[in-house]
Amino acid sequence: MGAYPKSFENLVDSFQKFPGVGKKSAERMALATLDMSMEDIENMREALLNGKKELRPCSICGNLTDQEVCSVCSDDSRDKNLICVVEDYRSAFAFERAGNYKGVYHVLNGLISPMLNIGAEDINLSSLMRRVEDLSHPELILALKSSIEGETTTLYIKAIFEQKDVVISRLSHGIPMGTEIEYLDMMTLDKALFDRKIISD
Amino acid sequence: MGAYPKSFENLVDSFQKFPGVGKKSAERMALATLDMSMEDIENMREALLNGKKELRPCSICGNLTDQEVCSVCSDDSRDKNLICVVEDYRSAFAFERAGNYKGVYHVLNGLISPMLNIGAEDINLSSLMRRVEDLSHPELILALKSSIEGETTTLYIKAIFEQKDVVISRLSHGIPMGTEIEYLDMMTLDKALFDRKIISD
Repeated sequence: MGAYPKSFENLVDSFQKFPGVGKKSAERMALATLDMSMEDIENMREALLNGKKELRPCSICGNLTDQEVCSVCSDDSRDKNLICVVEDYRSAFAFERAGNYKGVYHVLNGLISPMLNIGAEDINLSSLMRRVEDLSHPELILALKSSIEGETTTLYIKAIFEQKDVVISRLSHGIPMGTEIEYLDMMTLDKALFDRKIISD
Repeated sequence: MGAYPKSFENLVDSFQKFPGVGKKSAERMALATLDMSMEDIENMREALLNGKKELRPCSICGNLTDQEVCSVCSDDSRDKNLICVVEDYRSAFAFERAGNYKGVYHVLNGLISPMLNIGAEDINLSSLMRRVEDLSHPELILALKSSIEGETTTLYIKAIFEQKDVVISRLSHGIPMGTEIEYLDMMTLDKALFDRKIISD
């Protein structure tokens, strides 16, 4: 033989499409599927298809949703003038899990990175500018990580709204340097939100 | 919202069925599927279904196959009197990848472990005894890891074939203590196979 059976190779090849999953891990995953029930396998297949078909960015804030507009943007009790600007879906969901934030989000889907050749036009920024224009007393809370890319993006957003009537704040410096927002515990996140500093002057 | 969209939760739940995959890793995998092409998703769904439907233990040796009898057992050029006894599929495939072994396999699908309450009847041993009875000059190469369970199983197999005309050998002690067979490099595996020691006297 020299290799695994074809059906097994196909499983291994598929699982190697996941980021950070090499051949060994993919083999472990493939072996694990053999021990799963047919129901688990069918659920996984359904979830893959439905996820791919239904999940998309919210047309307003760019957050992950299976509707046209996400559940936060369509919630009348949320303060539409308070927009928390985050790098990715996971950051937004981290705030939601923390549970005390009553504003809405704007998901950039990336950060400006001159090193990786990612410019302001490559992230979800133009829709933020349009959003803010329709608001009466908007505040943008910049909840980006304290890396070079996070700082660059924070400064860029501060600059484009400088001449406008927009309050811009950032999370308080309780965030440990270099940590991903999504890994912070709820108390730290709440504290950083509460202690946010106005940086537009 | 408080939680991810339902289609996303379903993906996360599914991926948590993999051993060692917690919520965070499952979320990363679920997000990764959103960036995969529809073709990749369909291939993964196909592979899951076909793997579950087609993969089974070989009716002779217990190794993983998508046929009734695996490609090693059905290969006329392999020496059917030389049986390498391994713990699991991955060990067998590790020898196949090393490429110099010309005998066949017997996959135990486990090791005897009094601590975990796994007895001789819980692993694929009775079929090994039936197999050996049909052979003229059989040699069993016990290629089990050097853990308590591996040693217990080695001693047990040695005992049940003691009164029979069976040569029993084991891999040479080039195997580092406590290492999984599947992680050994090809040269070490070849060497351990070549240096195998007869332990039936």
